[in-house]
Amino acid sequence: MYFDVASTAPLHPVARQALTAALDEGWADPARLYRSGRQARMLLDAARETVAEVLGARADEVSFTASGTQSLHLGILGALAGNRRRGSHLVHSAVEHSAVLHAADRHEAAGGEVTAVPVDRFGRVTAEGFAAALRPGTALAVLQHANHEVGTLQPVAETAAACAGVPLLVDAAQSAGRLDVPGGWSLLTASAHKWGGPAGVGVLAVRKGVRYASPLPADEREAGRVPGFVNVPAIVAAAASLRAVRAESARENARLHALVERIRARVPQLVPEVEVVGDPVRRLPHLVTFSCLYVDGEVLLTELDRAGFAVSSGSSCTSSTLTPSHVLAAMGVLTEGNVRVSLPYGAAEADVERFLTVLPEIVAGVRAPLGLDLPAPAAAAAPEPTQTLVVDALGKRCPLPVIELARRIGEVPPGGTVAVLADDEAARLDIPAWCGMRGQEYLGEAPAAGYGGDRGSAYLVRRTS
Amino acid sequence: MYFDVASTAPLHPVARQALTAALDEGWADPARLYRSGRQARMLLDAARETVAEVLGARADEVSFTASGTQSLHLGILGALAGNRRRGSHLVHSAVEHSAVLHAADRHEAAGGEVTAVPVDRFGRVTAEGFAAALRPGTALAVLQHANHEVGTLQPVAETAAACAGVPLLVDAAQSAGRLDVPGGWSLLTASAHKWGGPAGVGVLAVRKGVRYASPLPADEREAGRVPGFVNVPAIVAAAASLRAVRAESARENARLHALVERIRARVPQLVPEVEVVGDPVRRLPHLVTFSCLYVDGEVLLTELDRAGFAVSSGSSCTSSTLTPSHVLAAMGVLTEGNVRVSLPYGAAEADVERFLTVLPEIVAGVRAPLGLDLPAPAAAAAPEPTQTLVVDALGKRCPLPVIELARRIGEVPPGGTVAVLADDEAARLDIPAWCGMRGQEYLGEAPAAGYGGDRGSAYLVRRTS
Repeated sequence: MYFDVASTAPLHPVARQALTAALDEGWADPARLYRSGRQARMLLDAARETVAEVLGARADEVSFTASGTQSLHLGILGALAGNRRRGSHLVHSAVEHSAVLHAADRHEAAGGEVTAVPVDRFGRVTAEGFAAALRPGTALAVLQHANHEVGTLQPVAETAAACAGVPLLVDAAQSAGRLDVPGGWSLLTASAHKWGGPAGVGVLAVRKGVRYASPLPADEREAGRVPGFVNVPAIVAAAASLRAVRAESARENARLHALVERIRARVPQLVPEVEVVGDPVRRLPHLVTFSCLYVDGEVLLTELDRAGFAVSSGSSCTSSTLTPSHVLAAMGVLTEGNVRVSLPYGAAEADVERFLTVLPEIVAGVRAPLGLDLPAPAAAAAPEPTQTLVVDALGKRCPLPVIELARRIGEVPPGGTVAVLADDEAARLDIPAWCGMRGQEYLGEAPAAGYGGDRGSAYLVRRTS
Repeated sequence: MYFDVASTAPLHPVARQALTAALDEGWADPARLYRSGRQARMLLDAARETVAEVLGARADEVSFTASGTQSLHLGILGALAGNRRRGSHLVHSAVEHSAVLHAADRHEAAGGEVTAVPVDRFGRVTAEGFAAALRPGTALAVLQHANHEVGTLQPVAETAAACAGVPLLVDAAQSAGRLDVPGGWSLLTASAHKWGGPAGVGVLAVRKGVRYASPLPADEREAGRVPGFVNVPAIVAAAASLRAVRAESARENARLHALVERIRARVPQLVPEVEVVGDPVRRLPHLVTFSCLYVDGEVLLTELDRAGFAVSSGSSCTSSTLTPSHVLAAMGVLTEGNVRVSLPYGAAEADVERFLTVLPEIVAGVRAPLGLDLPAPAAAAAPEPTQTLVVDALGKRCPLPVIELARRIGEVPPGGTVAVLADDEAARLDIPAWCGMRGQEYLGEAPAAGYGGDRGSAYLVRRTS
């Protein structure tokens, strides 16, 4: 049971087929003029069109790199170099991928300035907090679409609007294969092996008109952004699998969202002294992270591996640097005994159930020698946590989405959440307004795809009374 | 008929098998502790051992990059950064790959100094000429093993000796899949898709003790030299194909050497006003380049493509920058109507013969509208060019190799060449000495593999009288 798809996904069957075909048809140098070269060029162009279309970009904005890490390094250092006239100040959230932090370190070592925007306990920035870090001289802002360790979705569209002319790089590594990436980005990065494409392919999209100066030695390939021989077969496979997974995503997101909801609810019932971290509502559909007090993360991973579960951890003992995850640290949450579960497309309900059976035994076994007197699991005494009630108002015009919300919110207990799926733009104003009038808590907007919708947004409301 | 293997080689069948298997067994993140991660790590370790063994390195000296170009960029900028205390002077030959020139430009733009060592009309540096460019403050020297456009082998071992403590980076992109790379390097670069491995894998080897400081943001993977997710399946395939091609190389090198010898001899007999360029003797076995006066290179390539031959050109009209090859320019040879033929393993004699039939017709057809009064092909009047006579003295002790040479040199006409294959170290001194005594011209030493030997060196002698 491979529950670590946030690290890398096994090759999607469509990617494998495309790779096999492209190794026959697209192996030649696409810069050459002879037949096999022209054929490789055509395959490369078609793959670029596909990836651009899915990501909401123009084909000539998309370059292919060797990895998501290279995309981030080039995107950040290239945009900083291209926007030198604006200044040398870089802003990023405190919970970005380590590749962003390392590029920022490099920028700082070269004399640049860097501000990390803090996050709340859910790992989320606010658009206002992010905008407050901007100043004259800010040359680039960087914000992930979804956090890779705790799954929290960031307010990308709002932040893009608040950036007011400062170029924004959006890291979509964790989301590109599952959700629409909000518009408003100036640069966009992604990584194919996260969505079931082969390793060796990253995406760096740079909007027309955004200044970019390559930080690397000159090379004419990939619009002058990425030196080196272009890996056409892998790019073809990456594009094919992106299209394939996005065709499955509405259905799989809804299914995995419910399975993750189950883990989020049941783990605190089954394991004492556990903290489930990350935004409970504005989150990736397939990823959940929790931390178990008094437990060594590496021991936990080893035992889970022995029981057949491959998961990941942000605990210090599982890191080569022996420091805990900077994401968990920035959130101010527990870092010990940390487990990240990220479900691949097709993950079976029975396997999740088995995980929920095995986990409490393993944690108890690890804790037993400590002789601690642990309280009963926290949630056993608390009211039964409820799953999010999804109210599908897609295709319904104002005021129907609000009427549906009012009619059905009573089906969840106080503290429970309703996700209203709607594609009428008016819902964006009306639902928060209704919450204000009725004293319910408006949590925000997320892609409907995370709740099984095929378009539009999910408006999230917590019943307070 | 794909005769452009110096650009890229089709995937070797062994590479394809290995890739397919490794996509099943080695797709996971090799940094992870669970079973599939450990399995990927084992495959990666084994691939590194294989590549290191073939290249004459230790496994912990070898890092995998995304391309030969990335290997060169990182190797050059990383060695310069690591050896900053020596100074900021970079020396390279004038005929290096453009990735070297571009890295040198970047170094110069950052305040460094660069010297390009000139080459002779064959595209060859001398160890003395190279050493003369070194000075206090030289931090790095760069020399290719074999030239990618004309096939000339450089005196790497002699140059390494002459570098006397200055780190030498050897670019083995064109030779690693065919010949042993001479020792003496401090850094070594290569590219898997040139030897029938997949695209997306380069090699950067850094000798223990050689200073290196990554020019990129920090990343702990690949000994801190290459950021980004490690592409295990492609690396496994690259290693498998390197071993496979090197097992075939002695046989195939001899066969292709003879086919290239045939092209070198016959093209000037068949086409008037043609110049065959590159060292006739100290050369790659499978590559030959010639230039046809009064002919547009792009038209020639297009017509050859139409006739079914994929070849490459260093003519300005075939380059996106509309400048001729810097290699041909540095050699001071004709750049117009340039054709590079590089034969893949398994290239058929019949296809080479067909090329020799088609080429004169095409060149004549392109030239016809010009109404030029061309002389008869140069070599038709000249004495029949002879192939190199290979004298196999492998396993024979001194003075047998010299006796064999003396006995058989009469078999080639004056101007012809003898290659004495020998693995007795004494031959290195005795053969040049014999040439001096007998008034024959000693041309130098080349890998015996280029002449069908499985070990040792080829000592090349031109009969002058």
